[in-house]
Amino acid sequence: MSVKRASGGRTGRRPGASTTRQEILAAARTVFAAGGYEAATIRAIAAAAGVDPALVIRFYGSKECLFREAVGWPFDPAEAVARIVTGDPAGLGERLARFVVGAWEGEDGTAIVALIRAAGAHEEAARALGEFLTHGIVTPAAQALGSSDDVQRLALVSAQLLGVAFTRYVLRAGPLAEADADDLVAALAPGLQRLLAPDA
Amino acid sequence: MSVKRASGGRTGRRPGASTTRQEILAAARTVFAAGGYEAATIRAIAAAAGVDPALVIRFYGSKECLFREAVGWPFDPAEAVARIVTGDPAGLGERLARFVVGAWEGEDGTAIVALIRAAGAHEEAARALGEFLTHGIVTPAAQALGSSDDVQRLALVSAQLLGVAFTRYVLRAGPLAEADADDLVAALAPGLQRLLAPDA
Repeated sequence: MSVKRASGGRTGRRPGASTTRQEILAAARTVFAAGGYEAATIRAIAAAAGVDPALVIRFYGSKECLFREAVGWPFDPAEAVARIVTGDPAGLGERLARFVVGAWEGEDGTAIVALIRAAGAHEEAARALGEFLTHGIVTPAAQALGSSDDVQRLALVSAQLLGVAFTRYVLRAGPLAEADADDLVAALAPGLQRLLAPDA
Repeated sequence: MSVKRASGGRTGRRPGASTTRQEILAAARTVFAAGGYEAATIRAIAAAAGVDPALVIRFYGSKECLFREAVGWPFDPAEAVARIVTGDPAGLGERLARFVVGAWEGEDGTAIVALIRAAGAHEEAARALGEFLTHGIVTPAAQALGSSDDVQRLALVSAQLLGVAFTRYVLRAGPLAEADADDLVAALAPGLQRLLAPDA
């Protein structure tokens, strides 16, 4: 559990603090896996790691951020949602498609595909990714769009993107795998737009 | 490779014929994986299995059927496509959603989810499933709909269904996992309809 220490990318942090961070992360994975995202509390995670809850908050900021790090999701979904929601509602599908395809094709893509593969292979990884997509992305996105009563449409958006990522980066077959990034954005945008803003 | 013999479910076939069938299937998997669906020929598969091409046709009927058996896909997609395409074009999305959700929730679901999981774990299984979805389902469906110039839309249909299956049966989280079969059909149908028949 010493990935971050070994990478040595961040300086000025004592090894002790780094170890504690990793222990909190390991405890968070256990607690999230045991009862799911909703039931997990900072207090329970702190207890499992044998540290004070305030330290968990100091290191990770919030349950949302801790969950993202525990799952290994590469970008902050709250920031992404805020950026995509801002602007002309008629451009929602296009902005989401451009953001997601950019993430897939950039540095974050490897991490996302690895999470999908792991979910296919391990029950615990599947549970973590499923909880994260639901509570870390779909629910906040529905709230930001003011359509929290229709989380199902947002779940279809998530499923559409998951399926395209699986087809393009795991199966690597057919027109969705052969399309360049711009073509893929153009193909995805209209369907996403109708799911995100059926009335816009 | 003696799965069918061991199961003993079919009678009246000599063990020799059953072994040969399995040898042809194994040869087909190798040839399809090596060069993909388009490049594979019955002649090459027969040569790899050390049998006459006529025997391959006698056992499996066609390259399409052999491919389906080699991949382990549980139903005949040509038959399914014909059934879904027949009828009011305005009901295409609903008919597809009902057929697919029925397959998932019925006996065929286990096989389909196993294929998705295997594709996430093994390069060769991913290639086989990718080729099958493209050449065994998406392309014939586009032809049946008379929209073979727009295979990309059909690939988005395939990706949407793949993503929903992954969310519901692998991740098992969120509204798509919690919905009953009828709710899932109702949620899927409108988006599928727009992809299948944008002008209907």
